[in-house]
Amino acid sequence: MERDNKVSITVIRRLPKYYRYLSDLLNKGINRISSQELSNMTGFTASQIRQDLNNFGGFGQQGYGYNVEELKNQLGKILGLDKIYKAVIAGAGNLGQAIANYRGFQDAGFEVLSLFDKNPKLIGIKIRDIEIRDIEEMESFIKENGVDIGIITVPKSSAQEIADIYVRSGIKGIWNFAPADIKVPDDVIVENVHLNESLFALSYFMNNKNDYIRRD
Amino acid sequence: MERDNKVSITVIRRLPKYYRYLSDLLNKGINRISSQELSNMTGFTASQIRQDLNNFGGFGQQGYGYNVEELKNQLGKILGLDKIYKAVIAGAGNLGQAIANYRGFQDAGFEVLSLFDKNPKLIGIKIRDIEIRDIEEMESFIKENGVDIGIITVPKSSAQEIADIYVRSGIKGIWNFAPADIKVPDDVIVENVHLNESLFALSYFMNNKNDYIRRD
Repeated sequence: MERDNKVSITVIRRLPKYYRYLSDLLNKGINRISSQELSNMTGFTASQIRQDLNNFGGFGQQGYGYNVEELKNQLGKILGLDKIYKAVIAGAGNLGQAIANYRGFQDAGFEVLSLFDKNPKLIGIKIRDIEIRDIEEMESFIKENGVDIGIITVPKSSAQEIADIYVRSGIKGIWNFAPADIKVPDDVIVENVHLNESLFALSYFMNNKNDYIRRD
Repeated sequence: MERDNKVSITVIRRLPKYYRYLSDLLNKGINRISSQELSNMTGFTASQIRQDLNNFGGFGQQGYGYNVEELKNQLGKILGLDKIYKAVIAGAGNLGQAIANYRGFQDAGFEVLSLFDKNPKLIGIKIRDIEIRDIEEMESFIKENGVDIGIITVPKSSAQEIADIYVRSGIKGIWNFAPADIKVPDDVIVENVHLNESLFALSYFMNNKNDYIRRD
């Protein structure tokens, strides 16, 4: 869904949070929530929430608040969660296996079809029902299966090589856990998870409590 | 190190990135870098970098640029990386084991002393030289060893319980991987890693390429 107005990154980053809160509410059987209640839950002002959602259309009703299921589904569409994404994981170490094992991603529509590694001791092992294949087979596997998302959980020194294979194979979205800046063409989306940077932010705040605002 | 001026969160989040780039430069034997070169590497303007660093003192010299090692060390101090932090991990599944296994954290001064779990099949196993102990022993272990950081890699439904044990035991910083908002007293720092939210941001951008700006 393309829009004329560009949505700012800070707004975009809040959407998955709203989605998470709404999912929790729905799981508890709560199907209606006022702006103020949603504000209390999320920590964002009712006005901020309204503004954020207004980027995508009208939600909620004056005096009624929001219908949780409806809002969740609409946010789900906006986040692209009304689709199934086929994914592969390069790097079948602990982190790669952790991602393959996490049913939450599958429940959200992200299906890991295969892991890949170069370590012969790992090749052939199954994580749940997902096989670890030889990294040499990854490019053809991606093409044959129309894989959408490539996940990178290899060491930093191999990250660019994997990114190159992904790009060559037609992958359009990369979820990168390696602490490296991978270079890809402009039409490939890269989402980095910088665990080191997160940990160093923790140590910063532990040493500079004045700067810490509870957020998230 | 307490300052009068509060540093904004966007500045704070950039510091670990600078640190990462400077570490890479140092590893390549490069010990001097101009503002412009640092700008090209990081994607931030030379002026932004200067402003960010000015929150913490004067760095660099007009016409010389920055001394990489010196700047890295000073940023390291600011980030609190000139110390050793003792950490424990609650939840010895794949993700917990991945964190225990990652030597990069240890190199940066974060030592995982123990993992904890309730699963008898995991208790007693060693990850590298780090033991998985019974979760029942965690509170006394933390107190006896003066543990600084508690890592949470248990399912969402157990996260608050673990956070409560951490707080009771005197832990001052929590690195939380569970997709839950944990409640803690104001003097406890919480750094959340919301993997679901990161993945959903990826799917958002894959469906809304106009909004994607390569950052990070």
